[in-house]
Amino acid sequence: MFGGIEAGGTKFVCCVADENMNIIDRTTIETKTPDYTMTKVFEFFRDKEIKSLGVAIFGPIDIDRESETYGKILNTPKLAWANYNIYEALKNELNVPIMIDTDVNGAALCEYYEGHGKGRKSVLYITIGTGIGAGFVVGGETRNGLCHPEMGHVLVQSKEKDFEGVCPFHKSCLEGMASGPSILGRYGVKGTELAKDHEVWDFIGDYVGQALMAYTLILAPDIILIGGGVSRQEHLFTKFRESFKKHMNGYLSHGRYTKEVDDYIKYPKHGQDAGLIGSLYLAKMA
Amino acid sequence: MFGGIEAGGTKFVCCVADENMNIIDRTTIETKTPDYTMTKVFEFFRDKEIKSLGVAIFGPIDIDRESETYGKILNTPKLAWANYNIYEALKNELNVPIMIDTDVNGAALCEYYEGHGKGRKSVLYITIGTGIGAGFVVGGETRNGLCHPEMGHVLVQSKEKDFEGVCPFHKSCLEGMASGPSILGRYGVKGTELAKDHEVWDFIGDYVGQALMAYTLILAPDIILIGGGVSRQEHLFTKFRESFKKHMNGYLSHGRYTKEVDDYIKYPKHGQDAGLIGSLYLAKMA
Repeated sequence: MFGGIEAGGTKFVCCVADENMNIIDRTTIETKTPDYTMTKVFEFFRDKEIKSLGVAIFGPIDIDRESETYGKILNTPKLAWANYNIYEALKNELNVPIMIDTDVNGAALCEYYEGHGKGRKSVLYITIGTGIGAGFVVGGETRNGLCHPEMGHVLVQSKEKDFEGVCPFHKSCLEGMASGPSILGRYGVKGTELAKDHEVWDFIGDYVGQALMAYTLILAPDIILIGGGVSRQEHLFTKFRESFKKHMNGYLSHGRYTKEVDDYIKYPKHGQDAGLIGSLYLAKMA
Repeated sequence: MFGGIEAGGTKFVCCVADENMNIIDRTTIETKTPDYTMTKVFEFFRDKEIKSLGVAIFGPIDIDRESETYGKILNTPKLAWANYNIYEALKNELNVPIMIDTDVNGAALCEYYEGHGKGRKSVLYITIGTGIGAGFVVGGETRNGLCHPEMGHVLVQSKEKDFEGVCPFHKSCLEGMASGPSILGRYGVKGTELAKDHEVWDFIGDYVGQALMAYTLILAPDIILIGGGVSRQEHLFTKFRESFKKHMNGYLSHGRYTKEVDDYIKYPKHGQDAGLIGSLYLAKMA
């Protein structure tokens, strides 16, 4: 039995799966303080006899397995969790091999092994919601450097004169201009309350396309999957693709980046479950 | 004996080296037509008894070893070379194992093995000259996706109202705003003719810093080395680092991206020779 946790800012989803990755039990726990949430996590796993555990979690977090602070959550706006070492806590309680990576790296793994990335060399998974982040998998392994990527913070060219972006670090980076809070920051309402022909979708489509261009020029991935709350608005995908094509302007001649763009930029096969399923692949690797 | 070629838009440099990578003979050939230049390349290598050959060449070029058109130069402004297959030509003439990669990937290899990247996990090498490109090496291997990276074309945020950038594809991408031709495009003179306190260096420093931010957020490399004609202006490095720090705004807490930025962003140890030496490492891999 493998154990998996998808640890998000709103909820922790815990599950156990058999050797064939069939999920046989799961529970959802509210993300409050580590004390509250983790006590319930421990309870869920205590009698499950898992042989390893995977954790796909929000960042920033230390995921360098050679580091002394492996599994330590870094400087995060979720203040109760800053400096909390989730690896240490789980290891002490469950004493099984544990693999920790970001939620988006987990989702990329899921789509690589059993989603739209199956049979492809690499998968870039992006989430657009409260925050924007991305994970990259090549040949079944997540690609991290000195730290995990923070691709949601690349700068974008803005056309908006009256809005400077909501990112507290960079203002007009992608997260500052295309996340859920950016919509709230512009209009005081959530995206779900705005019509499909509202101008904001053109802005967001444009900025996301610019970022997809940067990721493509730097990583040249096989496929880009975009999940997260904002991307549930299906009509956005046409805008993502149009913006990507417009900005690339045919510069890279590979078919994936030109005539196959409809298949290159997609909604994930496993939708909102990709991170949880990915945590099981992390457990398998642990 | 290993053979190496650094193939650039102005000149081809060919060399042979012993097992310890000591260059024992070299020649420089003008880049004219394939017919003119390659005839001289063949002549140089004909009696050298090399056991393998590495080629570090300008892009775009097909470097997928499984492709039927491996070594074919793609759509390039150097028109005489478009669609020329340099792998095929060299293979037919010299009949030794040949490894082809981009000039910047070659330079990154050189710096990884015997330059400022020695002992580090990864090296990002950027050239800023007539064009802007980058190569990325991790664990001794160049990182390419479906095609080699074209990192010089990431978009940047411009502050200039009277200049829209010279890139024929993207106008205000990094290459459009910070390459040698961008200086010529603004003022009608070359960068070497402008004083160190000219405003253009602030612009270029700013744009390069923005791109370094994107590369860092996406790849999280151990070190960034910047070569090429424009970067020979040493005073620019202070501006690159200041711009990087200003735009990052402390977002990634890793020491390499904060307090060690002077060592993170540097001029390559092997300067203008990095590509040629890198071609020998390609030969070794072939």
